Amino acid sequence: MPLTGNVAEFPFKNNVPDPLLSGKELPTFKFALEKSAGKVDGGSFGKEATVEQLPISKGIAGVSMRLEPGVTRELHWHATAAEWAFVLEGRVRTTVVDPAGGAEINDFDPGDVWYFPRGHAHSLACLDEKPCHFILIFDNGYFSEFGTFSITDWLGHASKDLLAKNFGQPVATFEGIPTKEAYFVHGRVPPADAVPLQGVLTSPPLTHKYQLLAQEPHSIHKFGREWRVGANRFPISETMTGVVLDLDPGGLRELHWHPNADEWQYVVSGDYSVTLFGSHGRYRVETLGKGDIAYIPQGYGHSIENIGDKPGRILIGLNTGNYQAIDLSQWMAGTPSYVLADHFGKPQAVFERFPKARAFIAPPDGMGQREIK
Amino acid sequence: MPLTGNVAEFPFKNNVPDPLLSGKELPTFKFALEKSAGKVDGGSFGKEATVEQLPISKGIAGVSMRLEPGVTRELHWHATAAEWAFVLEGRVRTTVVDPAGGAEINDFDPGDVWYFPRGHAHSLACLDEKPCHFILIFDNGYFSEFGTFSITDWLGHASKDLLAKNFGQPVATFEGIPTKEAYFVHGRVPPADAVPLQGVLTSPPLTHKYQLLAQEPHSIHKFGREWRVGANRFPISETMTGVVLDLDPGGLRELHWHPNADEWQYVVSGDYSVTLFGSHGRYRVETLGKGDIAYIPQGYGHSIENIGDKPGRILIGLNTGNYQAIDLSQWMAGTPSYVLADHFGKPQAVFERFPKARAFIAPPDGMGQREIK
Amino acid sequence: MPLTGNVAEFPFKNNVPDPLLSGKELPTFKFALEKSAGKVDGGSFGKEATVEQLPISKGIAGVSMRLEPGVTRELHWHATAAEWAFVLEGRVRTTVVDPAGGAEINDFDPGDVWYFPRGHAHSLACLDEKPCHFILIFDNGYFSEFGTFSITDWLGHASKDLLAKNFGQPVATFEGIPTKEAYFVHGRVPPADAVPLQGVLTSPPLTHKYQLLAQEPHSIHKFGREWRVGANRFPISETMTGVVLDLDPGGLRELHWHPNADEWQYVVSGDYSVTLFGSHGRYRVETLGKGDIAYIPQGYGHSIENIGDKPGRILIGLNTGNYQAIDLSQWMAGTPSYVLADHFGKPQAVFERFPKARAFIAPPDGMGQREIK
Repeated sequence: MPLTGNVAEFPFKNNVPDPLLSGKELPTFKFALEKSAGKVDGGSFGKEATVEQLPISKGIAGVSMRLEPGVTRELHWHATAAEWAFVLEGRVRTTVVDPAGGAEINDFDPGDVWYFPRGHAHSLACLDEKPCHFILIFDNGYFSEFGTFSITDWLGHASKDLLAKNFGQPVATFEGIPTKEAYFVHGRVPPADAVPLQGVLTSPPLTHKYQLLAQEPHSIHKFGREWRVGANRFPISETMTGVVLDLDPGGLRELHWHPNADEWQYVVSGDYSVTLFGSHGRYRVETLGKGDIAYIPQGYGHSIENIGDKPGRILIGLNTGNYQAIDLSQWMAGTPSYVLADHFGKPQAVFERFPKARAFIAPPDGMGQREIK
Repeated sequence: MPLTGNVAEFPFKNNVPDPLLSGKELPTFKFALEKSAGKVDGGSFGKEATVEQLPISKGIAGVSMRLEPGVTRELHWHATAAEWAFVLEGRVRTTVVDPAGGAEINDFDPGDVWYFPRGHAHSLACLDEKPCHFILIFDNGYFSEFGTFSITDWLGHASKDLLAKNFGQPVATFEGIPTKEAYFVHGRVPPADAVPLQGVLTSPPLTHKYQLLAQEPHSIHKFGREWRVGANRFPISETMTGVVLDLDPGGLRELHWHPNADEWQYVVSGDYSVTLFGSHGRYRVETLGKGDIAYIPQGYGHSIENIGDKPGRILIGLNTGNYQAIDLSQWMAGTPSYVLADHFGKPQAVFERFPKARAFIAPPDGMGQREIK
Repeated sequence: MPLTGNVAEFPFKNNVPDPLLSGKELPTFKFALEKSAGKVDGGSFGKEATVEQLPISKGIAGVSMRLEPGVTRELHWHATAAEWAFVLEGRVRTTVVDPAGGAEINDFDPGDVWYFPRGHAHSLACLDEKPCHFILIFDNGYFSEFGTFSITDWLGHASKDLLAKNFGQPVATFEGIPTKEAYFVHGRVPPADAVPLQGVLTSPPLTHKYQLLAQEPHSIHKFGREWRVGANRFPISETMTGVVLDLDPGGLRELHWHPNADEWQYVVSGDYSVTLFGSHGRYRVETLGKGDIAYIPQGYGHSIENIGDKPGRILIGLNTGNYQAIDLSQWMAGTPSYVLADHFGKPQAVFERFPKARAFIAPPDGMGQREIK
């Protein structure tokens, strides 16, 4: 009996109730990420949202990172999380090495995505003469605490004799190297040819790059559209699905839930009202603006509405490679009208006017046919 | 290297010892479910056993539910558990919607089983003019606490403007709907034709229904028989195996253990002595009667003996779709007699009279050939 | 979408930080196993390292066991761990029964390995007229606490009436059997023919035995060699990989980490310096001698150097069947020299003299070509 993506996830995630989600009220699920201080180095910064900044976000963490020209987020790995990223502005060059010895160097434009499995070694460099800005999403809300391992931190603490032996070099080679984590490395703007020491790249079996916004949207509606990428379209991304959701003014990503994943939202542009339903009469609404994030626990009902007067974009990450969602309109469409009538104390005829298919993105006027593709 | 069902389960379940199981004595593993108060609404009720009622039962919870004619357990989903069910009396109609948009409506007779994966939306209605009674088993002992999401609870807390937009309906449509969870919906007896709003059912890839007692028993013995269904016979049931065990008076489901699952027992009829072996000299016996439940932690030795004077039936749920058990007689049959002789300080000849195959269900007189099929 | 070995492991292990690994300093990761008292019975003993002896070792436990001629580690099973073993001295006979009813009896020589999945019943007997010594490794650092179930403990606490019925034997058969756990059974030296009670062995689909040191080393270097076996070469070993690492004097298993597993080390011979890098400037070195063990958490950087004047051997267990490692030299070889130059503040030319392939085992003089096979 082969397993499906569901089996591995079901018995182990979220079995024991989270005390934070077991109270009479739901805690806040919003954090103003871009307004936070973060780690700043000139014009480069990294601002993070982990359980420390947003306690509800136990399943997913995120970072907003900006790099100035010539700056590299140094060679490192994460012992406790995989990394998914989306480029907002500028261009980025990544290096990554995997356990099979495969190495890949990729250049990314805005709208491109990368995924590095847990523990794989990588670096992120600003390409070209202008800054870059990207959002990192991690499949563990605790990732930052003692989980990021940097090459300068490691070599700076190892003895020079050990390093000399490790690399077959004189001890003097390692004199004067940094003694603590560089984090942001200041150096040259990456040259066009990025040839690794070994001279050839032994390509990994699965590429780490996916050009998300270079695709046609995967779902097109009258007042919005969505791009979505999980392990089906991007096989290395086994533990993450990424979504770019565009909503026109008044557009509503309808009430729905994800049976198998937590959700992390980052507002690229626009103003939104996000609702969260947590059972037992617990319901909370947050208003999000540009640079804010939100978190929806696995299985919790929610909706996203553009309440501004301009089109907007939200970036979404879910901690599963196998995307699943149930939309409220779809649920009701799959239910006989007499059942709904008895539930809500209304005549059957009322529900026969309800959508016959899922709305997915409901239009501002609440009327008309919604799903185009 | 493909995974088997074992791999996903092994490294993650029960690694850290449960304090409740780490004391000098074993805690009680019995609860009188049908004698508990539960939630009562006229002749309908739901009585539950979670870690609150039976602290040892961390891996599995259960509910006994009775519905009067015209009553429906309302549309809802469980964020933290899959649901397996067995119909004891009367007939039940279920609706279920899955993340791929598949919808299924099924009618169940006594002896039939359903399975709803974690997070899938469903309802349960009494069919016909007489009450129904069924047992629900959940693959998470904590399932009830803040894990059940009801449609009336959700819509009753959402703003009417949001609902109007979501469904493309006037705001007035939602005036007067229930403002809190209905739980038991009182309405009509379901009509013969149950046509969903969308007019057609988009069948899910795997059916949610299995007619367990309509099969021949899967194991027939002189003093008992067993029906068993896991993912092999009922593919959607990836996280649960269900068993119906019939024991004649004096019949003994022999000493055994399950390497990969916890076990939850519900007494349909009869009187039983259940033993539990917990290592370190810890051993406990409970006597169960009709309507009582018991819980056996993963890997713990146990046996079930009909100590009454009538044939009896026990319903059993295990939190794995891949059933595994090791019977004591089978273990000893696979062991050379000189090994057993040295272990127990008895002559080899004593053990050469032991069963040459597993007993599975031992007869009351302790003699004769036992396994028929 | 089929799962790979990675998926099942990633989202569930080590997501929540271990408080022991979240302090300013790394805790000790060494324990003098062979110098510990353990459980002694004449010339037989079992010395264990669990979280009690070595708190950091939450993912893996180990036991050093010596059996005198005629002594058997009694029939038992582990509810919470699989068992992997390596024979150091003497010969061992195992019996094992699996949930499908398969039974296997195997004889082991030094250098041979066995694997028993979690919950499978087994015994371990000293063969021949001289003692045997072997190392057991378990995929759960808590395995010992209320997780080992012994047949004498079970039968000694069950009622004789129940046992008589279970086996179809007179009650008198069970009079005088041990009333508590035997643990070490003293009896005959196993005879050549080990015929189980059932007369035939129903072979399990996967054998429990692998002759590790009878193979050519899987990796040969000028100053060391390695044998390695996971699920690829030994399919039943789904949750464990075993390694035998030989290092000549001065040989260095270079700086590396394992993205998907914890590591447990046992020194068979030789003297070693083991380094551990834990991020955030945390770095610790331990010196190990014969009979000592060490533990490396998942994703932590480490190295092993033979600092003695004789060749030495280390036995290593990792809690994954799917071995993964990233070596520091391989990482740097996959990185362009300008990146390294900017990181370490050195000219590019320095790094162009670095190894062009992984070192794996670096030689004592730090010079010359290293990898032979």
